[in-house]
Amino acid sequence: MGRRTAEPPISWLMRIKLERPRLISLAAGFTDSPTLPVAGSRRLLNELLGDATLGQAALQYGSTAGDDTLRKLTARRIRQLDGSPRGQAGSYEARRTVISHGSQQFLYMATEALCDPGDIVLVEDPTYFVYLGIMQSRGVAGRGVRMTRDGIDLGHLEQVLESLKRDGSLPRLKILYLVSYHQNPTSRSTSLRVKAGALELLRRYEHAAGHPIYLMEDAAYRELGFAGKPAPSALAVKGAVDRVIYLGTYSKPFATGVRVGFGILPEELLTPVLRIKGNHDFGTSNLPQQLVSRSLASGLYEKNLARVQRRYRAKAKAMTDAMGEHLPESAQWEQPEGGLNVWAAMPRKVNTGMKSNFFKKVLDRNVLYVPGGLCYVDDPTRAKPGHEMRLSFGAATEDEIREGIRRLGQAI
Amino acid sequence: MGRRTAEPPISWLMRIKLERPRLISLAAGFTDSPTLPVAGSRRLLNELLGDATLGQAALQYGSTAGDDTLRKLTARRIRQLDGSPRGQAGSYEARRTVISHGSQQFLYMATEALCDPGDIVLVEDPTYFVYLGIMQSRGVAGRGVRMTRDGIDLGHLEQVLESLKRDGSLPRLKILYLVSYHQNPTSRSTSLRVKAGALELLRRYEHAAGHPIYLMEDAAYRELGFAGKPAPSALAVKGAVDRVIYLGTYSKPFATGVRVGFGILPEELLTPVLRIKGNHDFGTSNLPQQLVSRSLASGLYEKNLARVQRRYRAKAKAMTDAMGEHLPESAQWEQPEGGLNVWAAMPRKVNTGMKSNFFKKVLDRNVLYVPGGLCYVDDPTRAKPGHEMRLSFGAATEDEIREGIRRLGQAI
Repeated sequence: MGRRTAEPPISWLMRIKLERPRLISLAAGFTDSPTLPVAGSRRLLNELLGDATLGQAALQYGSTAGDDTLRKLTARRIRQLDGSPRGQAGSYEARRTVISHGSQQFLYMATEALCDPGDIVLVEDPTYFVYLGIMQSRGVAGRGVRMTRDGIDLGHLEQVLESLKRDGSLPRLKILYLVSYHQNPTSRSTSLRVKAGALELLRRYEHAAGHPIYLMEDAAYRELGFAGKPAPSALAVKGAVDRVIYLGTYSKPFATGVRVGFGILPEELLTPVLRIKGNHDFGTSNLPQQLVSRSLASGLYEKNLARVQRRYRAKAKAMTDAMGEHLPESAQWEQPEGGLNVWAAMPRKVNTGMKSNFFKKVLDRNVLYVPGGLCYVDDPTRAKPGHEMRLSFGAATEDEIREGIRRLGQAI
Repeated sequence: MGRRTAEPPISWLMRIKLERPRLISLAAGFTDSPTLPVAGSRRLLNELLGDATLGQAALQYGSTAGDDTLRKLTARRIRQLDGSPRGQAGSYEARRTVISHGSQQFLYMATEALCDPGDIVLVEDPTYFVYLGIMQSRGVAGRGVRMTRDGIDLGHLEQVLESLKRDGSLPRLKILYLVSYHQNPTSRSTSLRVKAGALELLRRYEHAAGHPIYLMEDAAYRELGFAGKPAPSALAVKGAVDRVIYLGTYSKPFATGVRVGFGILPEELLTPVLRIKGNHDFGTSNLPQQLVSRSLASGLYEKNLARVQRRYRAKAKAMTDAMGEHLPESAQWEQPEGGLNVWAAMPRKVNTGMKSNFFKKVLDRNVLYVPGGLCYVDDPTRAKPGHEMRLSFGAATEDEIREGIRRLGQAI
């Protein structure tokens, strides 16, 4: 029952920030307020509500799957981002595109559709910690797959699949979950080679599993890139359309206050997910959907996105520059090419956990980070590293970022 | 797993309406479009987004429990609607008020928090059919409690509790679910006497159950009254604060396109429900919450509500007048004092079920209603009546209502 649900750390981290307004939060996921499209949204909502017919439609219920125009624009947009692969139009169908209340809801529903308690999901090691809360609440177990610079380590994925097969638990495996663009927390992106290789490996073990094993590709940070050229999604892999669950969001690239996410589903999962959505809320709020739809159609979305990307590039640089200045040489991190986070390994002796003295010492200096340990699934086959942290440059200003990192350096 | 979820009839009914624009839908829950507050919402959103600070806050994430101002306004409003009972201020705490993505999401979360598969919920006979879908999807069984003119039959409630006790299944009973204002589907309201009596009965069986049995009061239609004086909520019953889950919505009385609902929870359930919300979506979209909050604070809400109530009174009258004219004498119904529906019993020989010839004949005439049988829980202890229907005057115009009822009369 619901009471087995543990407190999701994201709720706690967001609450601390709201309760301590002077806190410099380098932790949970608020985004950059000054780039929120206030004036543009005002203009679009004025247009929308200036017309009685359009306005009434926007203030009325929509359908469970979401606004049809937005579904079409979304499917087309993902196809374009993927470079419109030839002969693959069928991978990007509006009909199989479902609008959700943030991509979080979509993650929840897809997991509910596929997993019973006791089932297994493979996740990246480390992974998006909020998803671990969803798994926990649904009684789903996890195994971690090691990461390389361009996504999961295919050799290790094969080892994990093999060991599940050996111990008879392959029939419980339902999903491989990948945050494939500027991953939360590491900011690494998955190459198309790794996506194709993972799909091929999953197929190879389906016979022993007795059912499809889906690749759930979470592309929430896809549009928040500011360097490099991201790979196409797994939908672009030939023949992948019936095995890839692709999900994304308009919240982070446009406005987190609208909470409009989406997913593109394999045919087989469309009906189960729509049924679940019918029970959860029978459809996402229409007004925010209409706002997003108009922002896409009018070009406001693209214009604002370019601003957002420039801004995050500057903030990422402010953070890593400050890290170079204030953290000891033995601390390690990678320069992000997108997303909202820098993933940092402290000297081994520093325990960064939520109950550590170090965490408390940093919080006493009014700075908050996400302990790296939260981003690792409970996996009996390996120990969790205890000296990492996720540092977000999403919400804080450049000055706050510099000051926050300075205080972090002091604490070490 | 999610695949056990059956198609919720509401999704199907909403889809038919969207797919057949010429259909006169006297079925699923769209509301009256001309009374939607288009101009007023435009003005409020202009104010909100005309201010950079307020605008940024509205387009940014909020907290999992919802906007604090809206939580306060909501708790205060429910207290006022209840006549601000003396010494009961503790029943209406903003701290225990949670904003949800429509009241549907709140229903889902409260049920998830309390029920395991195999648990039992008592519902009115008939009840809100969408809730039956939630129960089904979570593997929860139901028992029906007969209704009188002023709510459930307390004598029958006692019988049902007694029989659960006798057969040893009382420990599985978690909730009594009442739609207490202008009930969907019957439009009847529950008196304070019945609410107090039900709470007392539930308490009496808690010892044998081994845990609290909650009264979940769904007040979704509370503000849609247009005649009579509705009773206070169960929160006004002395000492009820730790056993009443009260839920309501701003979607129907204000704008269905915002999907802003809420619930007031007993202390014990607050944390479990917030954890569930943290996993489902970690917070309701902020922009619609801010719109509702401003509509309450500015008086737009009340002004619009008065219009909505007048309009539904006229439409209810148009419907029952047409029923008097076109339906046979053996058909029976009650004059609603609020809500969106007329509950009608056809002559016994008419089978109104979704697979009946009659349903098909009516749909062929481009009219849709909700078969009454959908509103009864599967309860092994009694047969479902097969000759009733729920006729909604929510979305259709007065002309459509008259024409729809005329065609319905022809089909009989």
